[in-house]
Amino acid sequence: MNSKTTLHLYTHAILLSLQKNTRMEHLRRNKVYDLLKSPEVGKEVLVKGWVRTRRGNKQVAFIALNDGSIIHNIQVVVDLAKFDEETLKPITTGACIAVNGILVASPAEGQPVEIQATAIEVYGSADATVYPLQKKGHSLEFLREIAHLRPRTNTFGAVLRIRHAMAFAIHKYFNDHGFCYLHSPIITGSDAEGAGAMFHVTTLDLNNPPKTPEGKIDYSQDFFGKETNLTVSGQLEGELGAMALGLIYTFGPTFRAENSNTPRHLAEFWMIEPEMAFYDIMDNMDLAEDFLKYLITYALEHCMDDLEFLNKMYDNELIGRLKSVIAEPFVRLGYTEAIEILMKSGEKFEYPVSWGLDLQSEHERYLVEKHFHHPVILTDYPKEIKAFYMKQNPDGKTVRAMDVLFPRIGEIIGGSQREENYDALVARIRELNIPEKDVWWYLETRKYGTAPHSGFGLGFERLILFVTGMANIRDVIPFPRTPLNAEF
Amino acid sequence: MNSKTTLHLYTHAILLSLQKNTRMEHLRRNKVYDLLKSPEVGKEVLVKGWVRTRRGNKQVAFIALNDGSIIHNIQVVVDLAKFDEETLKPITTGACIAVNGILVASPAEGQPVEIQATAIEVYGSADATVYPLQKKGHSLEFLREIAHLRPRTNTFGAVLRIRHAMAFAIHKYFNDHGFCYLHSPIITGSDAEGAGAMFHVTTLDLNNPPKTPEGKIDYSQDFFGKETNLTVSGQLEGELGAMALGLIYTFGPTFRAENSNTPRHLAEFWMIEPEMAFYDIMDNMDLAEDFLKYLITYALEHCMDDLEFLNKMYDNELIGRLKSVIAEPFVRLGYTEAIEILMKSGEKFEYPVSWGLDLQSEHERYLVEKHFHHPVILTDYPKEIKAFYMKQNPDGKTVRAMDVLFPRIGEIIGGSQREENYDALVARIRELNIPEKDVWWYLETRKYGTAPHSGFGLGFERLILFVTGMANIRDVIPFPRTPLNAEF
Repeated sequence: MNSKTTLHLYTHAILLSLQKNTRMEHLRRNKVYDLLKSPEVGKEVLVKGWVRTRRGNKQVAFIALNDGSIIHNIQVVVDLAKFDEETLKPITTGACIAVNGILVASPAEGQPVEIQATAIEVYGSADATVYPLQKKGHSLEFLREIAHLRPRTNTFGAVLRIRHAMAFAIHKYFNDHGFCYLHSPIITGSDAEGAGAMFHVTTLDLNNPPKTPEGKIDYSQDFFGKETNLTVSGQLEGELGAMALGLIYTFGPTFRAENSNTPRHLAEFWMIEPEMAFYDIMDNMDLAEDFLKYLITYALEHCMDDLEFLNKMYDNELIGRLKSVIAEPFVRLGYTEAIEILMKSGEKFEYPVSWGLDLQSEHERYLVEKHFHHPVILTDYPKEIKAFYMKQNPDGKTVRAMDVLFPRIGEIIGGSQREENYDALVARIRELNIPEKDVWWYLETRKYGTAPHSGFGLGFERLILFVTGMANIRDVIPFPRTPLNAEF
Repeated sequence: MNSKTTLHLYTHAILLSLQKNTRMEHLRRNKVYDLLKSPEVGKEVLVKGWVRTRRGNKQVAFIALNDGSIIHNIQVVVDLAKFDEETLKPITTGACIAVNGILVASPAEGQPVEIQATAIEVYGSADATVYPLQKKGHSLEFLREIAHLRPRTNTFGAVLRIRHAMAFAIHKYFNDHGFCYLHSPIITGSDAEGAGAMFHVTTLDLNNPPKTPEGKIDYSQDFFGKETNLTVSGQLEGELGAMALGLIYTFGPTFRAENSNTPRHLAEFWMIEPEMAFYDIMDNMDLAEDFLKYLITYALEHCMDDLEFLNKMYDNELIGRLKSVIAEPFVRLGYTEAIEILMKSGEKFEYPVSWGLDLQSEHERYLVEKHFHHPVILTDYPKEIKAFYMKQNPDGKTVRAMDVLFPRIGEIIGGSQREENYDALVARIRELNIPEKDVWWYLETRKYGTAPHSGFGLGFERLILFVTGMANIRDVIPFPRTPLNAEF
């Protein structure tokens, strides 16, 4: 690069075989984030990224360059008198280039600085006749079909950076509070929680599987010597951890094989499940509220550029909603009281309301959006609609469940105090015909040194839906898995 | 608790139904970590945890209590004159108790403080005739059979806290360096990387699967409409992310369906895979070395109590080895040079050495432990023993691979610069008969705005093996999955 003004290589192959000291790389790459956030006017810089747009006239070209570090592009100004036109030809939308230049104050509005190019190298072109991201304003549906390219758009760049920030904030919150990250298993031999339909995992040759004398599949010859599935929840294993380490959380993928083609369901999604020894349901609610408020505050403090973009493009109440959620205490009330409110509401619900109803999104959102105008934590649900491990109340009818209900989302967190009494837990398991042989290890936590404890689950994508304001859960995970779709 | 000195409840059920203000919980629990690390002598404290040992005489009982926050126990001193003997009976190894008391300076060696108990509550007993963790010194093999209880031992408490610290340090390192955490998919429709045998994922009724007219399984009726497997690597999807966001990393479970019953292999393990646009193999090596040194430094700074325990009990060279690895630059040399060293070594290897050999652990460890006495980064491997996506060198024989070799472990990181040239990549894919229809989306990254880029994979459990000094990979993950074993 020293002897030439421009160097145009589609493949970069020759360049990389040169000695290190002749290469552009000896000058450290500047991230666009740093140039825009802490601009040093007059500095020689090196940026590398993808061309978002190129425009200009016969004297000068303006290239909007993005490197993924921030939603904003940096403008590269190219004096055409100093560059060979042939060289600049491949610099079209989607091309990848490296630019040497001087950072100068920008006369244009909305950008503090721009780069006066002194050298440009093309790493890779993007043929304008076939590159799918040519024009602006693609539909989210179309972008789902090109999920391998959609991270290059402003929208998915913003969503994925926010997703990262939320994942990091989750780990930071728990680490700061003395929780231990426990990796619960993905492949499981038990279907104890009954949270949903499961995916089978097998290495058998399905076209020619071994059979038992009765003609059934002989799972004793499968990889694990028995039938195995993908986990629906790490909670039961999480409880084992909490009964030793005190405070733990899981953060891993979970699976549902339900044929639900809705904007709220994925077959593969990520879940966070903290589990706390010595927490009762009050402590559990306190933690859930503090945790959610921490995450939303973190997003407002660390992701404002991306949030402003999403607020402008998709949901102009987004930032206001995030701020309102952290401003006030969450409402806390019992399920029975909630049912009374719903019955008196005069609303027409698709699912009619009566005590015992498993609340639907429409009911949850009525309570949050129309009645209280705040997030709501509902407690003490009927035991029939909740899982076997929840602590039974003395009334014999309800359990110490708690669901956190959010605007637009409905249930964002579901949790409970756990039944720590061995006899009560065994009785409930028998009532529900759960095979004791599948949960012997879980029961032993109540047999040896049992303790009151609580926990909850946060669907990561539900959180990201709320924080980004996106409407479809397929748009907040890089590569969504849904019925008939496991592309990429 | 106000009117009584002791309160003995096996089940805790009655206690929890009392009003909040009559409960012990109104006094916030003190973690043993805080009491030992920042002791405030004279303070009234409340600790909750599990009894490790109980000893004493007719006047006084000494209870060693652990709550998982730290490897050390806190000693609870019980003046038997003030407590009902019947109440104290269930306080045996494994029982869970809450203790109110005064923190006092301890006359005993090795502990700054102890608690003079004023009130004790038993949450859960642990029948000494059946509780499996009665005696000290269980074998690691035995503990694997009770993986639901082993986190209650010193060894697994230490390992799991270190595992947590390393996971957090990984996220912190990448976050601090501007990387975006990308969740690559777990269920995948492609087997492109060919990194190993895969687990099938299906919802078909295997006893009665739908068939095609040719008598084969009809996967078009499966959940995803095609054959799907569990991922062996998130790298290919990671590259899609890097070509948009610049710097990304994955950290998720990966799977190998190989029937390898060794101390180094798991069927389900966690992998970290950073992928960096604009990094060549030199940058890649710099990052890998800096990253590993950061993690080991973090362990030494944050996990010394646990490391000292493991150093004493399992591997008295552990801490010295960790310190030595961060003290000096890693050795960097080419595969060809390494082969020459091995051939001249005079060592008797199980696998004879010649150019083209896929190095085995014995060779890697010879280079690291006997020849260089430092970690080694090997580069430029023969293309035949490496994956299709690695950048080809001009010699036509080798690729820009880099493996980081560690003492005791052998390969801890494997990575490469990627082939970013479309034509070269397609040619290699055809050479290897990889179906192009399975990787069309991957190839498009080279078609549209390709860029030089690099990445690597770190097996998380290999890292934990190294940092803990444990010998068997089954002992550094909470619930190991291996052939014929998917318990818990």
